[in-house]
Amino acid sequence: MPVDCVRPPVLRPGDTVMLVSPSGPTRPERVARGVELLTGWGLRPVPAPNAYARRGYLAGDDGLRAADLNTAFADPRVRGVICTRGGYGAQRVVDLIDMAAVRRDPKVVAGFSDITALQFALWRGARLAGVHGPGAAWRDDRTPLRSAESLHAALMTTSPVTVGAVAGEETYRVRVPGRAEGTLLGGNLCLITASIGTRDMPDLRGAVLLLEEVQEPPYKIDRMLTQLRRAGALDGIAGVAVGQFTDCADGWDTTVVDVLTERLGDLGVPVLGGLPIGHGLGQLTVPVGTPAVLDADAGTLTVSPAVH
Amino acid sequence: MPVDCVRPPVLRPGDTVMLVSPSGPTRPERVARGVELLTGWGLRPVPAPNAYARRGYLAGDDGLRAADLNTAFADPRVRGVICTRGGYGAQRVVDLIDMAAVRRDPKVVAGFSDITALQFALWRGARLAGVHGPGAAWRDDRTPLRSAESLHAALMTTSPVTVGAVAGEETYRVRVPGRAEGTLLGGNLCLITASIGTRDMPDLRGAVLLLEEVQEPPYKIDRMLTQLRRAGALDGIAGVAVGQFTDCADGWDTTVVDVLTERLGDLGVPVLGGLPIGHGLGQLTVPVGTPAVLDADAGTLTVSPAVH
Repeated sequence: MPVDCVRPPVLRPGDTVMLVSPSGPTRPERVARGVELLTGWGLRPVPAPNAYARRGYLAGDDGLRAADLNTAFADPRVRGVICTRGGYGAQRVVDLIDMAAVRRDPKVVAGFSDITALQFALWRGARLAGVHGPGAAWRDDRTPLRSAESLHAALMTTSPVTVGAVAGEETYRVRVPGRAEGTLLGGNLCLITASIGTRDMPDLRGAVLLLEEVQEPPYKIDRMLTQLRRAGALDGIAGVAVGQFTDCADGWDTTVVDVLTERLGDLGVPVLGGLPIGHGLGQLTVPVGTPAVLDADAGTLTVSPAVH
Repeated sequence: MPVDCVRPPVLRPGDTVMLVSPSGPTRPERVARGVELLTGWGLRPVPAPNAYARRGYLAGDDGLRAADLNTAFADPRVRGVICTRGGYGAQRVVDLIDMAAVRRDPKVVAGFSDITALQFALWRGARLAGVHGPGAAWRDDRTPLRSAESLHAALMTTSPVTVGAVAGEETYRVRVPGRAEGTLLGGNLCLITASIGTRDMPDLRGAVLLLEEVQEPPYKIDRMLTQLRRAGALDGIAGVAVGQFTDCADGWDTTVVDVLTERLGDLGVPVLGGLPIGHGLGQLTVPVGTPAVLDADAGTLTVSPAVH
């Protein structure tokens, strides 16, 4: 059964959204296209004070990245938080987030990949629903028009989101029939696994787990799923929504489909692969933290909106 | 304070040792040199029935790999278990090990890398001390004479093992002064991290943690250490022994030394880098599960023998 969540307000034309970099570094020219898109929707994107900071693989020191998140959550003029990109680093700062501010003025947060860790922390600290979709460091090669439309719909409308399995996706053959209802939680498999043992790991009982990955070989995907299983994190799960596993199988005779089928296929719950959600071409946006219906017979994942 | 451990008997000339593949696949020609070395020490190496099985990245199905481990532990003629190699797969079978057999007739188990997961399981199930060192798939290019002598000493003598920090090692500059005593536990960072949340994750309070890694970029090392920290696994630790971090820093402007210093340097315990233990050249063998003294002032790690 879905659990209660906090839905932030839908974004409206004229709203200010803050571009924040909780993970890896970026540059203004890399978010230019994202800014153009957001502006085209009538939003007013502004970079957080340290959005372009840089310290090795991090977008500046932990203090700066946490401060930007807290600035975005505390400033009443900011109505949405658009992460520029993933990479790595959110888990270093999530314990510094002012959750009271998040609860006081819930705002929609968009991002994916390493941002899964931020979404988990906001779920833990505020039961905040969010949006799993491309960041402001927009790449037209990966995210064509339908990707933009999908992010727009998730942020600026209160319609449910339906994503269908696509025959061309590498995980399309991963399927266990059936229909499951539950809160959609998850995102990047590495970050889900890296949450095990921390207070951010959500209770997945009754949930539909969303999984996607990029550039991890099959044996590492196996290792992560094995850890989730052995840690009991998949006990009582309602279903699994399998997104894109991009550049994960090169040079291995065990395919991603083999691994996913073997490690998820015996859980006794519906599993639907082939969803264009993740790091691949045509990446679509889905809400997370809201009630979802996974219909592995019809080949669809339908998710209640993240915003109200 | 070190906790009690079960020391298996020292190996003696004439003893049979079984070559087992709990993780990735290998071939007879790849263990030929290891067999030659073991034979030269007067041991009688015999391959387990499925030592050369193969199913993708695994040395055969889980059932076969578990059966081989249980054969080795149950057969009274077998006096030691030499893993052929790491790779991946031990965590898929450790829950199938007959721990009553392990406790009934404790045997020394040697291996490293993915075998860290097996050592953790044997520690959990039997408090069995073991040997962290090269497997039977011996590579002379990585493991010269001193490596062979080190493995020989750990398996076939009851002398304590002392390993000194080496100035040429990539982690040599990782150091926090001081002296720590505790049970030496650990091995490969990926596998330690992949144990979080499972029953195999040892209680590291009072322990000296051994860490080594291969082919993981600095940001992933950061992620793993951050997970260990956030999961509380490093709370109360006595010290950290840092081995080789091989091929981990190519192309990154943040070095392995930076990451290890930053994530381990503020724990308030002695940390000693530069130990030639892991996947690098001149890899030495150390017991695990036995009392150790980490002297970061003298630059030495001294470990009580795994065997009696």
